[in-house]
Amino acid sequence: MSTRAVSAIEARTDRLVGLLEQCGLDSLVVTNLVNVRYLTGFTGTNGACVVTRDDRVFITDFRYVERAEAEVRGYERVRGERDLLADAAALLRGRAGFDDVHTSVRTHGKLAESIGEGVELVAAGGLVEDLREVKDEGEVAAMREAAGLADGVYQYIVERGLAGRTELAVARDAEREMRERGAEDPSFPTIVAAGPNGALPHHDPRDVEIPRDTLVVIDMGARVDGYCSDCTRTFATGALSDEAVGVYELVRRAQEEARVAVRAGAGCREVDAVARDVIEAAGHGERFGHGLGHGVGLEIHEGPRLAKTAEGELRAGAAVTVEPGVYLPGAFGVRIEDLVVVTDDGCDVLTGFPKDLVTAG
Amino acid sequence: MSTRAVSAIEARTDRLVGLLEQCGLDSLVVTNLVNVRYLTGFTGTNGACVVTRDDRVFITDFRYVERAEAEVRGYERVRGERDLLADAAALLRGRAGFDDVHTSVRTHGKLAESIGEGVELVAAGGLVEDLREVKDEGEVAAMREAAGLADGVYQYIVERGLAGRTELAVARDAEREMRERGAEDPSFPTIVAAGPNGALPHHDPRDVEIPRDTLVVIDMGARVDGYCSDCTRTFATGALSDEAVGVYELVRRAQEEARVAVRAGAGCREVDAVARDVIEAAGHGERFGHGLGHGVGLEIHEGPRLAKTAEGELRAGAAVTVEPGVYLPGAFGVRIEDLVVVTDDGCDVLTGFPKDLVTAG
Repeated sequence: MSTRAVSAIEARTDRLVGLLEQCGLDSLVVTNLVNVRYLTGFTGTNGACVVTRDDRVFITDFRYVERAEAEVRGYERVRGERDLLADAAALLRGRAGFDDVHTSVRTHGKLAESIGEGVELVAAGGLVEDLREVKDEGEVAAMREAAGLADGVYQYIVERGLAGRTELAVARDAEREMRERGAEDPSFPTIVAAGPNGALPHHDPRDVEIPRDTLVVIDMGARVDGYCSDCTRTFATGALSDEAVGVYELVRRAQEEARVAVRAGAGCREVDAVARDVIEAAGHGERFGHGLGHGVGLEIHEGPRLAKTAEGELRAGAAVTVEPGVYLPGAFGVRIEDLVVVTDDGCDVLTGFPKDLVTAG
Repeated sequence: MSTRAVSAIEARTDRLVGLLEQCGLDSLVVTNLVNVRYLTGFTGTNGACVVTRDDRVFITDFRYVERAEAEVRGYERVRGERDLLADAAALLRGRAGFDDVHTSVRTHGKLAESIGEGVELVAAGGLVEDLREVKDEGEVAAMREAAGLADGVYQYIVERGLAGRTELAVARDAEREMRERGAEDPSFPTIVAAGPNGALPHHDPRDVEIPRDTLVVIDMGARVDGYCSDCTRTFATGALSDEAVGVYELVRRAQEEARVAVRAGAGCREVDAVARDVIEAAGHGERFGHGLGHGVGLEIHEGPRLAKTAEGELRAGAAVTVEPGVYLPGAFGVRIEDLVVVTDDGCDVLTGFPKDLVTAG
């Protein structure tokens, strides 16, 4: 790992300490493994860290001591028991934050039994998630690589054709090709949904043949260095009805207008409204039953959300999807999705596959 | 799904209602998705159910209404909001159990705000997990299929050879072959650990060449119909030292003796002790740093545990691994693991690949 990357990782905990001060916390225990990885670099399946204003301690069990030595930077490394809770509790001081979003009621009970005199547990979920919303250079580079890799897989899939193959075969083939090209994994189970199946927003690919002359929604992403990409394209498998072409062009325009509205300072609800207004004006408002987008990073769904009920503004460095859709039950669906990184005056689009209607016969 | 399979699934909730009565609970909310799947058959990513002595209600959001219709049996199906909590809370009655092992502090707080008058939330984690420990016929059939599929992949890997390939290439190849043969997925990330890497119990396969004349630990499993298999074999890549052969035979014997000790009514600690005693008598007690085994089912790690600190007895129908290991730091490791189903007078071994030392040059 380069010196630069190490400093970037250490800077994350510096920012976290700033948040602790803002929240009046003296210490924080971090147990969610994604948050632990974000702060320390640790990729094992059992680790926790305790951050105070002065100390940074990482704890794992005997199975991961070697891995922690290789991966963890900026933290004192301690070997604990398999259940890391007591070791972590002993390090907490004063007003001690814990992650109430991820800590179970039972674990909280054990933690409360293990803390020392004068320590007070305070619900403080979401602090690391707040930091994670703004990506640093290394994170954007990993996501760009993942997105570029998936672009190549879209090209491959189009070249092999869709009609006559099954949804499941196309999904398996795409995931195999993704791994072949160097992805650690798909970032979520690939969706291939043809014709009426495309109108089911969370359809699992089935062992059914993709017909000619319809639309096929393909939603997929790759994982590189732990970071996810996310992209949806909708393809034609031959001649389409005027209605299908019209809905495609509508979603394409809604996507484009929303994407142009993305910039630092834009309201998360307002950006959603840009796409929603275009689709509502065309009379399909009821057919766009989900939010416009979500943050992406170490997890495929993280903050911020772009939705009718979202609050707050986009920050520069946030990585979000822009993915309006229109779903006509029993007929077809169209969704077009880009993954973009917010900049001061717009956004940097990581997903490069064309959005003109492509026919993959 | 056959009528028989449907009744088997419905029988699970019948057994759960029996547990509610034993615990003096009037109702139970089930939110952990693995438990929801076990009880209802639902495979989506947002669902909950509420079981009372008289009613069984399954709730999901609009995205999964069609899927629930196709999959869920024995439950009334209700469409709720994306956050299912308020809908679930409204159905709770009297002493209402919740899963304190999986429910976060924040979710518990919201649940407490949403329950009706006279409803009391009672920590009741582990009830469904207790049922899940004893497999029914359909579950065993799925695990047998998964294990048989992985056996074939071991054969394939041995035929292709190990020495000169990288750990990572072998792991990727095994996982690709698993999918090719019909697995939904590997049931966990495949471990391929050669020479000294084999002494690290949770080693991730690396881009390093597997040397000749050493031992290679390969730990892998497949997932079929949601059910996991789990198997470890240790292979030679040529001529071995007498020490390596001796440790292999020791682990083989410890595994065999422990497997023979498995039967309904045997103590979970006692079965662990059978293998541990063999290894300790040979002077390697300190080199067997993990438990003998764990339950397997919809999750790769579930109850019961076979370990020094385990409590309770094995029940007929439990599916457990039997996997002693000896790890010599800096030199090599040996682990041999079978997946077995406990019967009244012994066990049914699902993993069929030979345990004699096989050389895969």
